[in-house]
Amino acid sequence: MALVNEHFLKLPNNYLFADIAKKVNAFKVMHPKADVITLGIGDVTQPLCPAVIKAMHKATDEMATSQGFRGYGPEQGYDFLREAILKNDFLSRGIHLDIDEIFISDGAKSDTGNIQELIRWDNSIGVTDPIYPVYIDSNAMIGRAGTMKDGKWSNVIYMPCTAENNFVPKIPKERHVDVIYLCYPNNPTGTVISKQELRKWVNYALKNDTLIFYDAAYQAYITDPDIPHSIYEIRGARHCAIEFHSFSKTAGFTGIRCGYTIVPKELTAATLGGERVELNPLWNRRQSTKFNGTSYISQRAAEAIYTPEGKEQVQATIDYYMENAHLMLSTLRGLGYQVFGGENAPYIWMKIPSGSSQSWQFFEELLYGANVVCTPGVGFGPSGEGYVRFTAFNSHESTQEALDRIEKWTIQR
Amino acid sequence: MALVNEHFLKLPNNYLFADIAKKVNAFKVMHPKADVITLGIGDVTQPLCPAVIKAMHKATDEMATSQGFRGYGPEQGYDFLREAILKNDFLSRGIHLDIDEIFISDGAKSDTGNIQELIRWDNSIGVTDPIYPVYIDSNAMIGRAGTMKDGKWSNVIYMPCTAENNFVPKIPKERHVDVIYLCYPNNPTGTVISKQELRKWVNYALKNDTLIFYDAAYQAYITDPDIPHSIYEIRGARHCAIEFHSFSKTAGFTGIRCGYTIVPKELTAATLGGERVELNPLWNRRQSTKFNGTSYISQRAAEAIYTPEGKEQVQATIDYYMENAHLMLSTLRGLGYQVFGGENAPYIWMKIPSGSSQSWQFFEELLYGANVVCTPGVGFGPSGEGYVRFTAFNSHESTQEALDRIEKWTIQR
Repeated sequence: MALVNEHFLKLPNNYLFADIAKKVNAFKVMHPKADVITLGIGDVTQPLCPAVIKAMHKATDEMATSQGFRGYGPEQGYDFLREAILKNDFLSRGIHLDIDEIFISDGAKSDTGNIQELIRWDNSIGVTDPIYPVYIDSNAMIGRAGTMKDGKWSNVIYMPCTAENNFVPKIPKERHVDVIYLCYPNNPTGTVISKQELRKWVNYALKNDTLIFYDAAYQAYITDPDIPHSIYEIRGARHCAIEFHSFSKTAGFTGIRCGYTIVPKELTAATLGGERVELNPLWNRRQSTKFNGTSYISQRAAEAIYTPEGKEQVQATIDYYMENAHLMLSTLRGLGYQVFGGENAPYIWMKIPSGSSQSWQFFEELLYGANVVCTPGVGFGPSGEGYVRFTAFNSHESTQEALDRIEKWTIQR
Repeated sequence: MALVNEHFLKLPNNYLFADIAKKVNAFKVMHPKADVITLGIGDVTQPLCPAVIKAMHKATDEMATSQGFRGYGPEQGYDFLREAILKNDFLSRGIHLDIDEIFISDGAKSDTGNIQELIRWDNSIGVTDPIYPVYIDSNAMIGRAGTMKDGKWSNVIYMPCTAENNFVPKIPKERHVDVIYLCYPNNPTGTVISKQELRKWVNYALKNDTLIFYDAAYQAYITDPDIPHSIYEIRGARHCAIEFHSFSKTAGFTGIRCGYTIVPKELTAATLGGERVELNPLWNRRQSTKFNGTSYISQRAAEAIYTPEGKEQVQATIDYYMENAHLMLSTLRGLGYQVFGGENAPYIWMKIPSGSSQSWQFFEELLYGANVVCTPGVGFGPSGEGYVRFTAFNSHESTQEALDRIEKWTIQR
């Protein structure tokens, strides 16, 4: 008799963005003429840049000829892309990597979801809270998160990040953590971590033999020179951290699918018997067995963002989104709201003013009052309650219009 | 302390195709002037057809405009592709599916590797032998396969398929099997299953509450009208089977990455407590959490193979490969070899003539004697010993040249 993996049944039935879509649809049915502006889901809106488009056409043409056709690529990705990454994202910051420490994938969501396969089912995990739901859900599916009660998983250590602690998570003291997920610039709060703070985490990890899964998907939005783009800017991180990158937000690749993951060769984890096992060959084995490489077209597209034209064009789109972020920050502050993030990240995290105590309630009030969609903070974890997230991934025009409506609505309240 | 998933350490260190590449390279270093022809790895060689190329250019151009740009697609795939699949691959054969029983992915390797996440870690699994290694390795990584000894996993039930039983696996009687992997047309043997034989498996599964994972990646190569293209041609299969499809071999997409998986809504598995759980929402949850959809370009490429031009062009390439297969069959038979498959599949499975008893030995003799690369059968499992696999995925010219060399070499031996 085939038995089901019952850990799946412990997952809550609601998906954050599906719930939002349902509520927005209900509103639209009732108000068919309303023009709803979405600052909810973190998806990009601007077209791919010309350098990327050119590279994709060229790669497509290659596939039309006997000489240029490419079948299975390496599961780890093509060297042309791995070399461009190594040179531009790391060497330029003084970080030395081996080319086979870089694994190209179809995106950071897959990799952050799959990476937990490398560790024992009973490792304890720690997360900053609020958090990108994939980190926990992927652990829950294999039983590592325990059981869910009152919005919290029994085997997960939550490290609250709120206005009260200035969004700096406290290193857990009361309970040992085997694996810690960090995401900086942070989704959903848009806040960042300084080198000094990140060094504390690396030192903790080295001292306690803790593994850090570091999600750097939003690093391209960093403008402040003191903020690290990679955990490997911190000495010792090669011994304790795996890092995830994505082209989704860097270059608008949410529909193209390409990202990469760094697994340093020094990185090990222990067996029960106390032996050390290198994780780089294990991840290689995982990818070689359950993945067949990323689309050749997508890899050529990613390579193109590292050309001089590509860099300039990609930066122009990032600047475009960050203009939205800055406009949102200043407008919302001007209206008296407490807002965070938005300076080195495309997300604005806003404290709900007293009166609407719950983030789902505020979400609905804003939808019905201003026809603007945000994301309720509690959808990202218990410490997200009392906040909502706005994204900067819209056009200037829609962002300005949304802010005008929020202003009018706020004044009328 | 982070502990490693020690199940990974039970996997044998050698990868079949990496071992082959190593041996071929060693030969090339010693014989730099030799012109080696590869009939080893199952990768396509012919360019993408014009309809696909046109669709990819068009999709790329869409992504360059604000109106046409697409960000995150549905994790389950775009409806335009799901509808084309439903209509062309199933309705045309009298199989009715719901659109949300079709899950688009980046290829059948990912899906056949990930599907085991839905079942408990201690289900028993049965495989035909020889077999595509991903089925077992993906189970081994989570501990389900047990431990490896003398080339066999302790918790895997092997069902030998050899010339002696005409490559028809026997339904296991001595031990109950919770989950069975079937692949037809078969990789590596190139043999097929009749409706009558497949019906026996479906009936067994229904009677024993066994789940069938049915890999139909090579169905496009079937020419015989009595051979099923889908397990859902068999009554009752919707209650016991998940089916995997790929565009890799159908349309040369090994570098483009697109496939799909069918999870019928009737399909359930049991909890320990005896409740039935539907697997369709579970797979949906798995994909929504750890996957972010397939490249838009790849999905438009796949859609194009269902247009009238696309169908014709794709069929022409399949016919091209099958001409190779038929030439190989007749030539090798003419030389006195016992060969199987190759009639409804792009693979030829050849019994090694007495004298070279081991498939690795024959592989080396053929490489050094005729400069032709095959795949040693034992690399696909214990019952593959004594056989080698040839693929039809080469040009006519190279296939003919390889056969000429094999002929000369055979006569001289």
